Amino acid sequence: MRKVNGITPTSANKQIFVVICHSHNFMRYYLPNRYDQVMISFPNLGPSAVQCAIESVKKGKKVAVIDKKAGVGGVCVHTGTIPSKTFRESVLHLSGYRHQGFYGKSYARDNITLKDILGRVNTVIANEMDVIQAQLKAARVDLIPGLARFENEHEVSVEGDSGQPTRLRGSKFLIACGTRPAHSPLVPVDGKVILDSDDILNYDTSKLPKSWIVVGAGVIGMEYASMLNVLPGINVTVVDGRSEILTFCDDEIVSSLKMEMRHNGARFLLGESIKSCEHFKNGVKVEFNSGKAMFAEALLYCVGRQANTGGLNLEAVGLSRNPRGLITVNEKYQTSHPHIYSAGDCIGAPSLASTSMEQGRLAACDMWSNKDQTTSQLESGNYPYGIYTIPEISMVGKTEQQLTKEGVNYAVGLAKFSELAKSQMGGDIKGTLKILFDPDTQKLLGVHAIGHGATEIIHIGQVAMAMDCTITYFRDAVFNYPTLAEGYRVAALNGLGRLTKEH
Amino acid sequence: MRKVNGITPTSANKQIFVVICHSHNFMRYYLPNRYDQVMISFPNLGPSAVQCAIESVKKGKKVAVIDKKAGVGGVCVHTGTIPSKTFRESVLHLSGYRHQGFYGKSYARDNITLKDILGRVNTVIANEMDVIQAQLKAARVDLIPGLARFENEHEVSVEGDSGQPTRLRGSKFLIACGTRPAHSPLVPVDGKVILDSDDILNYDTSKLPKSWIVVGAGVIGMEYASMLNVLPGINVTVVDGRSEILTFCDDEIVSSLKMEMRHNGARFLLGESIKSCEHFKNGVKVEFNSGKAMFAEALLYCVGRQANTGGLNLEAVGLSRNPRGLITVNEKYQTSHPHIYSAGDCIGAPSLASTSMEQGRLAACDMWSNKDQTTSQLESGNYPYGIYTIPEISMVGKTEQQLTKEGVNYAVGLAKFSELAKSQMGGDIKGTLKILFDPDTQKLLGVHAIGHGATEIIHIGQVAMAMDCTITYFRDAVFNYPTLAEGYRVAALNGLGRLTKEH
Repeated sequence: MRKVNGITPTSANKQIFVVICHSHNFMRYYLPNRYDQVMISFPNLGPSAVQCAIESVKKGKKVAVIDKKAGVGGVCVHTGTIPSKTFRESVLHLSGYRHQGFYGKSYARDNITLKDILGRVNTVIANEMDVIQAQLKAARVDLIPGLARFENEHEVSVEGDSGQPTRLRGSKFLIACGTRPAHSPLVPVDGKVILDSDDILNYDTSKLPKSWIVVGAGVIGMEYASMLNVLPGINVTVVDGRSEILTFCDDEIVSSLKMEMRHNGARFLLGESIKSCEHFKNGVKVEFNSGKAMFAEALLYCVGRQANTGGLNLEAVGLSRNPRGLITVNEKYQTSHPHIYSAGDCIGAPSLASTSMEQGRLAACDMWSNKDQTTSQLESGNYPYGIYTIPEISMVGKTEQQLTKEGVNYAVGLAKFSELAKSQMGGDIKGTLKILFDPDTQKLLGVHAIGHGATEIIHIGQVAMAMDCTITYFRDAVFNYPTLAEGYRVAALNGLGRLTKEH
Repeated sequence: MRKVNGITPTSANKQIFVVICHSHNFMRYYLPNRYDQVMISFPNLGPSAVQCAIESVKKGKKVAVIDKKAGVGGVCVHTGTIPSKTFRESVLHLSGYRHQGFYGKSYARDNITLKDILGRVNTVIANEMDVIQAQLKAARVDLIPGLARFENEHEVSVEGDSGQPTRLRGSKFLIACGTRPAHSPLVPVDGKVILDSDDILNYDTSKLPKSWIVVGAGVIGMEYASMLNVLPGINVTVVDGRSEILTFCDDEIVSSLKMEMRHNGARFLLGESIKSCEHFKNGVKVEFNSGKAMFAEALLYCVGRQANTGGLNLEAVGLSRNPRGLITVNEKYQTSHPHIYSAGDCIGAPSLASTSMEQGRLAACDMWSNKDQTTSQLESGNYPYGIYTIPEISMVGKTEQQLTKEGVNYAVGLAKFSELAKSQMGGDIKGTLKILFDPDTQKLLGVHAIGHGATEIIHIGQVAMAMDCTITYFRDAVFNYPTLAEGYRVAALNGLGRLTKEH
């Protein structure tokens, strides 16, 4: 027997499975050092690792998780999905955004501080950590604080607080080490005036800067830009080198978002590359290669994410990484070593909490060869994107641009939220639901939504697409009235109506 | 040619189709007096009539609508769904109910008046009327103000403001005359202290009574009781002769609603029948046959609805009505005269705006024998119930009680909203999603939800049920994170997990 972190492990180690992450001062168990699965997660246990561990425990496996930081939850709980979406709920509430239809723009609370917003964020983070800790405790997963480092294909060493490295053996591994914001030498992030998306959640100021440049018009950039944009008295400029924001989304939906953000004062500088960025007075000055220059009180840099694969000594086992540190896996989430899996943000797109969860579960199913569990919707590509901008966006299936590019004929059914009684009642009538379908077979090709509730109602279209429904299903279905879901019926009638006229 | 309301009709009347309702001083067109369809709606054109008219117009039919009162929208817009659900949105907003998780109960606005609540209601009513009027105008439906009365099987007379009756002929008729609150001789409704559900929307008081007895624990009673119950400083007692509220709902869901309402101070007096009800000081005193007596500042009477079939002279065409005035129809919404249809609340349960819309559309499809349009989900019984209590309830398929009664074996998958990150973020963690499924085939048998968003997310389960999915679909699907929809995945994992343990 071997000591792990100075503690003698129990002897009852039958099957061994290990999962790796990186946490410290968490829980100290009597630990076996042979596992079915070792998971490496960093800096905190995220959605793919949690689902993989729980699925493996269900199959009777003994699981260890190595995590560097205190607590669990991964990027999702600490710096990603959970805080940014809670931030969003706070902003929606404090700005009164959804009720301005009745009460006007002056309805927003005065002097909203970051403390007001982050108060709710910290409550939710604490709660989510409780939930995950309880799940893992109930599943008897061993949480091992420390930094994991591969020694060979079946062993990792863990350097804990004591500085005394120890070794764990696993028959299977999952690397779920997550990502962190990438930086650029042109933009000197200092956490005070020039921030990345982690900094904004630990931002130590009672006053919110009144003008922001948000660099990066991908999901993270657009989420924060649109949130800041609805807070009263704040000016936001979005900058990106590409000529469009959220390039994977449907054009019409993206136009709606830009229109709504512009309506609230946002500016977009697209196709612009940064020449220089420097502190200037109480803020930051940015010069562009196009010759433009602009000043703001703060800059938020959201271009790219970098995988946390650095300290894992992947070289020792011959695993290669791309320049962003991403790990290459096959469709079963296996690396070049079939017993070493990787999932979550560190393997690249789509990098959503939702898809990471499913990747973790599927990896576990494959590890223990439970074939019936692997008929996942993730593999067939039938999964939604949820983008928590204000207003929120969600989509499943193809966009108009994609279909056009692929030479697929399609018809469109539209529902404007302003036509829906539910939107009228809520006071927030901005939004659209768009169904793309084949005019001949009437099969669904894609569903796109922007507006309150978009991320929820997209799942109605998702089931319909998975079941290969025609759009007539929505015409013939009874929807609760009033709901936003009813938009499917309105869109179906609209789409089928046009078809009749056009034919 | 004949004059209608003193105006000479146009001569270009090809096909004739009439729909009947009862409105005055609305629009004055040049009217033909022969229609494909005559619709009778009362007091204002409601969802079944609107859908029937629009569907008929799509098929090239000429439609007249006879409606007594000004405006259109029927019970749904004026006294039913729209105002009560807007009332609900106002109450939710003004009481801060959903945010009390973060800010505590004192978060509610002070001194909420009925004017505050009804302000939003009237805005939405005006808006919905605009939408419906625009739809009907675009469809060139003739709106004829007045009271309709059957003269024979193909003619109705209309008595308008001028007092001059005129006659309309139709080849098809739809009676969509709606319902009004039923009264009891034991409960003398006066619109001031003793109200029915119409009165509360026209209630002329700046101060809301602080104590309420709500008689009737059906949908309308429970919706208003639960709304009043979340307003600060208001005491609500629910009274019903039956031993349970919302008897068609799943027991577990009903228990949750009662628990939540009790948590906010509500009392339930079930299995109690009223002996007397009288004015007493500034309020009302109720004595029960059980010997109990109680006092409140106001009483809301919500027991039953009565069809508005009284003035239609249905006897002239030999159509029978039951004691509540309801019209008997077959599965195609035909009365005993195949060319006279009836739809909406006046034919009885389910009496939902959603089902009424679909009934109207299906009636039109059947009138003009468009068979391919009649593959409705309504007919297969796969439609949801949406109950806009606080918290809201929705269901599709069977309840546990029904399955037990039918001797069907079933398994249960549960998701508590408190486990969902989305609920935590919103501050409202009360809610449950319950999936009932066949443990052998894993097919879905019913989905029940209580909590914020229940009426929206139920449609995910509805599509799955319509498509004969197994519960494994939800385990294998990717859900946006964070959403309430994700509850389906949690419930599926829960349900399938229990199954493994039990087998």
